[in-house]
Amino acid sequence: MESAIPKHLVCPRTRHRRIPDDYSPPYPSAVARYKLGVKQVVMAYFGVQYRGAALPNEADKALVSVARAFASDQGPGYWDRAQYVDEANFTNIISVGYWDVPTEFDAWFGRHGAGWTDGTVAGSAVGTFSEILRPTVERFETLFSSDVAEGVACLADGFSGVVQEHAYWGGARDRIPLSQTHDMAPIGVPRVVATGLRQRVIPHENICLIRSGQDWSATQADERRMYVDDVEPVLRAGMDFLRDDGLGIGCFANRYMTVVDSSGRTTEKTYGMSWWKSLAALERWAESHPTHLAIFGAAMKYLGTMGAAAKLKLYHEVTVAAADEQYFEYYNCHPKTGMLRIAASIG
Amino acid sequence: MESAIPKHLVCPRTRHRRIPDDYSPPYPSAVARYKLGVKQVVMAYFGVQYRGAALPNEADKALVSVARAFASDQGPGYWDRAQYVDEANFTNIISVGYWDVPTEFDAWFGRHGAGWTDGTVAGSAVGTFSEILRPTVERFETLFSSDVAEGVACLADGFSGVVQEHAYWGGARDRIPLSQTHDMAPIGVPRVVATGLRQRVIPHENICLIRSGQDWSATQADERRMYVDDVEPVLRAGMDFLRDDGLGIGCFANRYMTVVDSSGRTTEKTYGMSWWKSLAALERWAESHPTHLAIFGAAMKYLGTMGAAAKLKLYHEVTVAAADEQYFEYYNCHPKTGMLRIAASIG
Repeated sequence: MESAIPKHLVCPRTRHRRIPDDYSPPYPSAVARYKLGVKQVVMAYFGVQYRGAALPNEADKALVSVARAFASDQGPGYWDRAQYVDEANFTNIISVGYWDVPTEFDAWFGRHGAGWTDGTVAGSAVGTFSEILRPTVERFETLFSSDVAEGVACLADGFSGVVQEHAYWGGARDRIPLSQTHDMAPIGVPRVVATGLRQRVIPHENICLIRSGQDWSATQADERRMYVDDVEPVLRAGMDFLRDDGLGIGCFANRYMTVVDSSGRTTEKTYGMSWWKSLAALERWAESHPTHLAIFGAAMKYLGTMGAAAKLKLYHEVTVAAADEQYFEYYNCHPKTGMLRIAASIG
Repeated sequence: MESAIPKHLVCPRTRHRRIPDDYSPPYPSAVARYKLGVKQVVMAYFGVQYRGAALPNEADKALVSVARAFASDQGPGYWDRAQYVDEANFTNIISVGYWDVPTEFDAWFGRHGAGWTDGTVAGSAVGTFSEILRPTVERFETLFSSDVAEGVACLADGFSGVVQEHAYWGGARDRIPLSQTHDMAPIGVPRVVATGLRQRVIPHENICLIRSGQDWSATQADERRMYVDDVEPVLRAGMDFLRDDGLGIGCFANRYMTVVDSSGRTTEKTYGMSWWKSLAALERWAESHPTHLAIFGAAMKYLGTMGAAAKLKLYHEVTVAAADEQYFEYYNCHPKTGMLRIAASIG
């Protein structure tokens, strides 16, 4: 068993972990390990938004364009795409790219970034947005129930062995290296600044992003039924709560995404992606909301019993970003899109 | 809103709370407040144990005797009595006395203590035991959903206002004043020393005791049905798990007690009383075991909705005792009684 915090990021603590040193988790999980040279990563969500079931030509053009840009020089080390229908009945298709060399992202974004949110790429018949974090490695963590990488972990050098800091409330915080010395409390409030169809969000210190996913494609028989009939409906209820009523508890926005393949077909992978005022707000929801408690209880029971035999794959990544590590821009989007929801909440 | 830690016990911290300073609990709870002069309390559990449904004369005599002793000079400031049938099918009736002047307890115990566990009071047809803690006020905490005192809080001067440190995992730790500077980790292991029919338990540092109770006597209609049909069976499942399978997770013993009135009749009050290797072990169970998660989720939902209108009363007291604040003695008891269970676990 090893610490989730890699050796080169261990520092003298001013803050304690929530567990005693002899704590042993009830089932194994691992974290992604990056090459020592990786100091900072980029997580860039590029969304296109439209109303109705049919994919408009403009949206299709935008999707082709971002895929082509991703494949171009200095593109992301990994990217994937997912979609969902939001509470305003708009379909949102988000292409997410991950970089582990921020200067390469900067060069790439210099060529492709502005066009995404000024109407050049997609025109004005659809909405587009960019939501980008560039956390240092001290500011994010991952957790995996299997050895199949997803999201930012696809940039990693590999997986750790079994880590100690998981399967208890507060584990995510304890896995983030910065928690050794910092409470990661939010400072300030985000605000929206509009210029015509373009809206920027001016961030606050220590916003929190979680991407939390599940892959049930390999499950069969009883395990599949368990996921589809017992787990997924409870998960969906939690996701719906956050989407519709999250603002009051510090969840700025939540999207329950279904991953699509290269042909745009939905897969048996989903992830919840949500923006939070703070890691503390995320912790409070996760550990007290009945739907999430039910999910956690089911997972504890399930993984505690099945262990390595489980075919359901679970993972997440949690980031607490400094203000200068955030970039939010929206073009022609409806007012409940992503971080724009805060405009309503702060008047 | 105020801190659960009383002002006179606040000290410079070396350890942080689990919540940010702006945390606001989703429903109100209060803690017991003691007079400034109270530095240490005594919680003394005197049990009598017998097999079968009928109360043997010896047990009856013992119960009368302890009640008489409690009513005598320097007796407890408060006491109550409860019973349960244990896993070996013995009935255990426990009379619990609380003192807030340890020297008075010492004088009282000097007159009545030895006789309880040497056969003088009860003879040898039944078993008797004493389980006694004498924590300083830095080492225990209470929590109440109503303003009706139970247990050690019956010694208190009154209740606090609404406290901040509750309704999240780790709240009990944060309410214990010692947590400001101490991890309260266990040191050493307890062991059993036998002399004939008498067995003493030599304690370890930082054992943890929880008494966690519920009173549904005032509930009616839907609320009563909710408690009896939905909450109690889940609570019982959790209590049974701890009783039967607790040792592996650090629960030395668990008793799911029903409070009895002065005539010995059962009431609509119960409490779980359990001995733990450490507060951390208790925390891990509470926050990860499906039955307790279900209880917590139901309570969060219920109290969050009903708030002050709830007629179900919940309370608990959690103590982390130093080795020299513990006293365990058993006379003629079966080997699964209370802390004697550890003998099996440590060979």
